[in-house]
Amino acid sequence: MNYDAALATAIDRLHAEDRYRTFIDIERTRGQYPHAVWNKPDGSTQQVTVWCGNDYLGMGQHPVVLSAMHEALDATGAGSGGTRNISGTTVYHKRLEAELADLHRKEAALLFTSAYIANDATLSTLPKLFPGLIIYSDALNHASMIEGVRRNGGAKRIFRHNDVTHLRELLAADDPAAPKLIAFESIYSMDGDFGPIAEICDLAQEFDALTYIDEVHAVGMYGPRGAGVAERDGLMGRIDIINGTLAKAYGVMGGYIAASARMCDAVRSYAPGFIFTTSIPPAVAAGAAASVRHLKTDQGLRDAQQTQAAILKTRLKGMGLPIIDHGSHIVPLIVGDPKHTKKLSDMLLQDFGIYVQPINYPTVPRGTERLRFTPSPVHGPREMDTLVRALDGLWSHCALNRADLAG
Amino acid sequence: MNYDAALATAIDRLHAEDRYRTFIDIERTRGQYPHAVWNKPDGSTQQVTVWCGNDYLGMGQHPVVLSAMHEALDATGAGSGGTRNISGTTVYHKRLEAELADLHRKEAALLFTSAYIANDATLSTLPKLFPGLIIYSDALNHASMIEGVRRNGGAKRIFRHNDVTHLRELLAADDPAAPKLIAFESIYSMDGDFGPIAEICDLAQEFDALTYIDEVHAVGMYGPRGAGVAERDGLMGRIDIINGTLAKAYGVMGGYIAASARMCDAVRSYAPGFIFTTSIPPAVAAGAAASVRHLKTDQGLRDAQQTQAAILKTRLKGMGLPIIDHGSHIVPLIVGDPKHTKKLSDMLLQDFGIYVQPINYPTVPRGTERLRFTPSPVHGPREMDTLVRALDGLWSHCALNRADLAG
Repeated sequence: MNYDAALATAIDRLHAEDRYRTFIDIERTRGQYPHAVWNKPDGSTQQVTVWCGNDYLGMGQHPVVLSAMHEALDATGAGSGGTRNISGTTVYHKRLEAELADLHRKEAALLFTSAYIANDATLSTLPKLFPGLIIYSDALNHASMIEGVRRNGGAKRIFRHNDVTHLRELLAADDPAAPKLIAFESIYSMDGDFGPIAEICDLAQEFDALTYIDEVHAVGMYGPRGAGVAERDGLMGRIDIINGTLAKAYGVMGGYIAASARMCDAVRSYAPGFIFTTSIPPAVAAGAAASVRHLKTDQGLRDAQQTQAAILKTRLKGMGLPIIDHGSHIVPLIVGDPKHTKKLSDMLLQDFGIYVQPINYPTVPRGTERLRFTPSPVHGPREMDTLVRALDGLWSHCALNRADLAG
Repeated sequence: MNYDAALATAIDRLHAEDRYRTFIDIERTRGQYPHAVWNKPDGSTQQVTVWCGNDYLGMGQHPVVLSAMHEALDATGAGSGGTRNISGTTVYHKRLEAELADLHRKEAALLFTSAYIANDATLSTLPKLFPGLIIYSDALNHASMIEGVRRNGGAKRIFRHNDVTHLRELLAADDPAAPKLIAFESIYSMDGDFGPIAEICDLAQEFDALTYIDEVHAVGMYGPRGAGVAERDGLMGRIDIINGTLAKAYGVMGGYIAASARMCDAVRSYAPGFIFTTSIPPAVAAGAAASVRHLKTDQGLRDAQQTQAAILKTRLKGMGLPIIDHGSHIVPLIVGDPKHTKKLSDMLLQDFGIYVQPINYPTVPRGTERLRFTPSPVHGPREMDTLVRALDGLWSHCALNRADLAG
């Protein structure tokens, strides 16, 4: 067995399909974001503007977050020193969980090291708690939900993306007495479209199913207190389990679920991905709690983000560039093949100091390869102007289609 | 379907078996560890000494770690703002990976948000890279390895704990041409015993298998540069993939693998648990790198830890208390049933300010429930004395057996 050759084959396959990922080494400077320094492979550096980050509101450099982290470091040290059960539960973790439960108006919240593991661990544990559980999962759910649903051999049904008619058919075809759960997202990050939350809650009620929503691309940014799209639409009370992240709009790290006290207690007690891992550092918990607390009232940041997204979309549409617009803060620009997408990304970075990562299969379907912009309140008019002009020029230079590629 | 009743049933089952976990809320004070404040459920507080933490060397409060974290926070902000591929790779992540590759004398290292996810993601991805891969897994491997091996449907064989004769039988029974991997640990944390690294490497060579070692309870603490037991025993070069953590002896957070450049590149490219999750905060990476770097030379801390463990074991043995001693830094004291274990833990905490968590099924087999002490260089003679006297008194008070329960 030539193990090394097998590895080479696996890697070569990615090169052949033009989807080998090259990580760009970016160094942000506190207070200067979205400006950052690109550390090039040759050792030189270049100033760039980050246009693809998930620190959607710039909270990763907000003074309330940073001072909370500095304080916790000074007070308590670096790591937590253990799993939540074995010396790794601190007042910082408990305060953050209380902050999140309050945010979502649920009885409890449960912290994980990431929203990825929150999805994976929770969805794979639920069949242990509800024997015979059938999980109905949107076809475009995030990889972490797919991993969770796949594990532990519970029954699963995949419904076509956002297709409540298909979901109804699947629900109606199963034993009415079987425990059921519908898992979906509030905003699908690659197209920026919204899940039909109200219709799904109606179906859940009709078929006596639990609801599980992933709000990672919405928490902090939607709803009067930043609890997400379900809050904005007055539907939070109809969702049984809300999944969110502390690593995007909240600007730090970690993930969570918010649910009933009993649900959180059961997941806490049965999920290996929760039990057998070191809890997040107290300073990280402190920073995240400060960020969640701050965004409960800073509606100005949310408004500014939506305004920036609307301006960028209007300008790109005005030039006939094929963006997808579902009214969210995410601005996907379809290129349609991996080679051009990579080329555009490289040219934007090298010639214009604009950093936007190419998005390829399997993150998006083949033929819909894209650049995905995440405008934020910290992107000013000058940055926006530079981006729009650069894209306009490159689109002409590369003789790419305008407008007719949009979904 | 009464979902709430199903949750209550699942939770009641744990109460009935005396293995419902109650998290103790501990607040460490920087510079005072292992002393900490216990925030009691009634709102009052009590000074305690932590005897069950995994911050084995006290690096979580070491000035080099904390100043690296403060500096990175000041320089770059809180979170990384993205996955490694989408704006979340920084010079801090790359420096840490270089530090870890150097530590283990491998071409490369790959960071994960935890060693749990490093195990889970890597072991579940290897069958994609080596179609037909058979994984031979020690029966007492950590939950994260079990989860990784179980997923993605690759073939697996479980060999009896540390039983190389059994492992040989299993290897010999399979197709010689099939790709194979042996997954095991260098120190099994619940008994504190060592894996037979040399013998396993011999078998791997004979049967052309890859080797995968989990060194999470060894990195920082064993070997002349803290690279683990394989380094101490001069066997690191014979291991293909080394898994380690930054959350125990290194005192911060995060996990990793170290391996060939090609192996890391392939796992990086194919593991959803690596690809689709936000990278660790730059400040966390900076603290971890400082800790790894420091422990490459601070042999004094390693020696002090081993001395502390040896003293504690000698004293407990001298009183006939049934500890397990395999010569590692971990000191398990067998109680043998969950009720007594919990009771002892509660009395130690309340009456003596000694915090040691009860360890129950499924973490250890039923009938071997235990208290597990982790002495460190920061536990002084006074703390040790208090612990030994308290245990001696309680053992008599509860009329527990001496010596004859030890494994």
